[in-house]
Amino acid sequence: MTDRVNDDSAAQREAVLDAASRAREAAVDLAARSRADKDAALQAMAGALEAQSAGILAANAIDVERARAAGTPEAIIDRLRLDDGRIRGMADGLRDVAQLTDPVGEVVRGYTLPNGLELRQVRVPFGVVGIIYEARPNVTADAAGLCLKSGNAALLRGSSSARESNAAIVDALRKALVDVGLPADTVQLVPAESRESVTHLMRARGLVDVLIPRGGADLIRSVVEQSTVPVIETGVGNCHVYVDEDADIDMALSILVNAKTHRPSVCNAAETFLVHAGIAEAFLPRALAALRDAGVTVHGDARVAAHDDAVVPATEEDWGTEYLSLDIAAAVVDSLEDACRHIRRYGSAHTDAIITRSQPAARRFVQAVDSAAVVVNASTRFTDGGEFGFGAEIGISTQKLHARGPMGLPELTSTKYVVVGEGQIRG
Amino acid sequence: MTDRVNDDSAAQREAVLDAASRAREAAVDLAARSRADKDAALQAMAGALEAQSAGILAANAIDVERARAAGTPEAIIDRLRLDDGRIRGMADGLRDVAQLTDPVGEVVRGYTLPNGLELRQVRVPFGVVGIIYEARPNVTADAAGLCLKSGNAALLRGSSSARESNAAIVDALRKALVDVGLPADTVQLVPAESRESVTHLMRARGLVDVLIPRGGADLIRSVVEQSTVPVIETGVGNCHVYVDEDADIDMALSILVNAKTHRPSVCNAAETFLVHAGIAEAFLPRALAALRDAGVTVHGDARVAAHDDAVVPATEEDWGTEYLSLDIAAAVVDSLEDACRHIRRYGSAHTDAIITRSQPAARRFVQAVDSAAVVVNASTRFTDGGEFGFGAEIGISTQKLHARGPMGLPELTSTKYVVVGEGQIRG
Repeated sequence: MTDRVNDDSAAQREAVLDAASRAREAAVDLAARSRADKDAALQAMAGALEAQSAGILAANAIDVERARAAGTPEAIIDRLRLDDGRIRGMADGLRDVAQLTDPVGEVVRGYTLPNGLELRQVRVPFGVVGIIYEARPNVTADAAGLCLKSGNAALLRGSSSARESNAAIVDALRKALVDVGLPADTVQLVPAESRESVTHLMRARGLVDVLIPRGGADLIRSVVEQSTVPVIETGVGNCHVYVDEDADIDMALSILVNAKTHRPSVCNAAETFLVHAGIAEAFLPRALAALRDAGVTVHGDARVAAHDDAVVPATEEDWGTEYLSLDIAAAVVDSLEDACRHIRRYGSAHTDAIITRSQPAARRFVQAVDSAAVVVNASTRFTDGGEFGFGAEIGISTQKLHARGPMGLPELTSTKYVVVGEGQIRG
Repeated sequence: MTDRVNDDSAAQREAVLDAASRAREAAVDLAARSRADKDAALQAMAGALEAQSAGILAANAIDVERARAAGTPEAIIDRLRLDDGRIRGMADGLRDVAQLTDPVGEVVRGYTLPNGLELRQVRVPFGVVGIIYEARPNVTADAAGLCLKSGNAALLRGSSSARESNAAIVDALRKALVDVGLPADTVQLVPAESRESVTHLMRARGLVDVLIPRGGADLIRSVVEQSTVPVIETGVGNCHVYVDEDADIDMALSILVNAKTHRPSVCNAAETFLVHAGIAEAFLPRALAALRDAGVTVHGDARVAAHDDAVVPATEEDWGTEYLSLDIAAAVVDSLEDACRHIRRYGSAHTDAIITRSQPAARRFVQAVDSAAVVVNASTRFTDGGEFGFGAEIGISTQKLHARGPMGLPELTSTKYVVVGEGQIRG
């Protein structure tokens, strides 16, 4: 039994490293392609998804059936399920990416040095990008398209629950690549049968240039801790709305309800609100009523709970929780500085908002809160590549290295310096 | 004995985490400081180094004495030794950094979204930067200055061989910080008595924002493999000079000799040269003679060795070796594409140069060689923050994430998005 496991493990490792080596070869070809070549590939990939929709839907039906037999909750099955509209959505997404500017070749800076050397810093692809993600099969097409446009070969490690769907999607995409003369290995699926393939991907340093885990906090933590391949951490969002003493109360109510309830299951939804003591008496009764009407359970500190019997007493754990549900933590703070301290201590540095009419308060909050996005007088829900005008998004980085906040195509590239001379030597 | 070791280890861990926590607090203060405050601190630090030079030299004498007693080679002792000139050099370095533009607050991009939200991407400090480095005590002052100017608290983990010198330098810098009203914990030394403090630093995820190892390949590999804190990999350079079929032979000779011999012990020195077969007959006899005259040993393939009995036959290992000495590997290649393949296979993606008069050859080389710096008709020795006009350099990144090539002050920062509205919610 142990031998069998070891054989399987060695075979898995071999399969992942082989895929990564082929991706590396494909990436060398891809890096030299023009935007026209890449856009033609994206159009062909979109067409192939639509042309092969029957096969993709049949594969998806197997995944859905298996999930149902395993007793998977209906909400998860809904994320797994494809239909004609969702396949069209994936295809249109690829066509949208074809419209975006190619980041490769952009001159980030450039000048001539005193000795006559011409120096340019130019955007280049990473090479091989690994994406590790969970249930939704549409991520397969989205990630492949964004990687291709930015000149990267993609190693896609989806969820085993979507394996038939992902295989059918990738099969269609690879055929389209070959049709337009690009290497099929530009897009590859990494086996999802066991968790081990993730481990092998994380250890493929030198073959894989960057790993982007997309999914729950556990997945991301495990990749960050174990990977020797550089990682871009995404997604965990314990976002705050701070209602300052000088807030416009109607605006604060509207933003708070929107930030919590517009889509509670996503990373830019609000998970805690803080109210300045100077406005708490005026704001809290209306806020608690509005949240109750919207079906939200408030987990409040003693000063919040004093306003409403329906408030659940907050524990220390509540301040650090990403509920992803119709729950919100709430506290009264005595100052802007206390609010900033609370956010620094418990937040996840994703998105935090202040509601205020005070210019100095806004300025101080923006300075003192070190998050990927700091928002003044608007909903936390705007932290999103689409909303920010990037045209596409591979995820939202919550780390400080390389990319922070929503990541579009430029964030999927590195740079190189090109130095052109006429025989200069160093003296 | 085991208990004693465990106690020491726990105490070391405690000491590192405590230093990191205090750095984190200092970083919050520092992030809000104006350029004027930071420049005043740099000037005070420079003055303190000069004012306390007697104490620093006395401490350094202890390090030098201990190194000599341990039989350390004179070349390493020379790197360790300080004198009045070197202390003045450190002080002047800090004054130079005070003259550089503050990267913090730079608006990297910004526009107004269709819904009226004002979006700005703004440079902010990382927070806490850990630097792990080897013998030279001057790095202590350089790294502290660059971190401070970019708004970062610095955790400096120098070599145990320089511990008295580093302690005296940091003591002077911290007193100067207090004198100008900045927190002393902006600059801290991490205990260097055992290798374990490096391990604790690498595991201080959440307290340390980025680690920059500077030093030999072994140190860098170990940090990259073990760190859970994000790392910027620096320094290993297996740099190539490719002499194309269309090269100007005099230019190629001059560049090759400069790239190899100008300063053989640094990462941007050439370690291999490749010659196109079409020019080998004309180029090699002169190149081998010039290199011999400069005291260089050539490790060549059969086609190179055929030209000169003094050529040492190259082994597979030579192609991947960073000699850092007056040795160079050499091979004849049949095409530009073969040269690019060789460089991709054996190179370290630091700096690679082509010598050619052919525009298409230069263009293809720049595209096909994916290195931090790709050089046309100039020496590899120019890959350097000073030479590139950055005014200062914390190291040369050989990774693709975040920073690639020489790193100046902007590379010591992250960004945040600042979003300013007037009550916008997401519909």
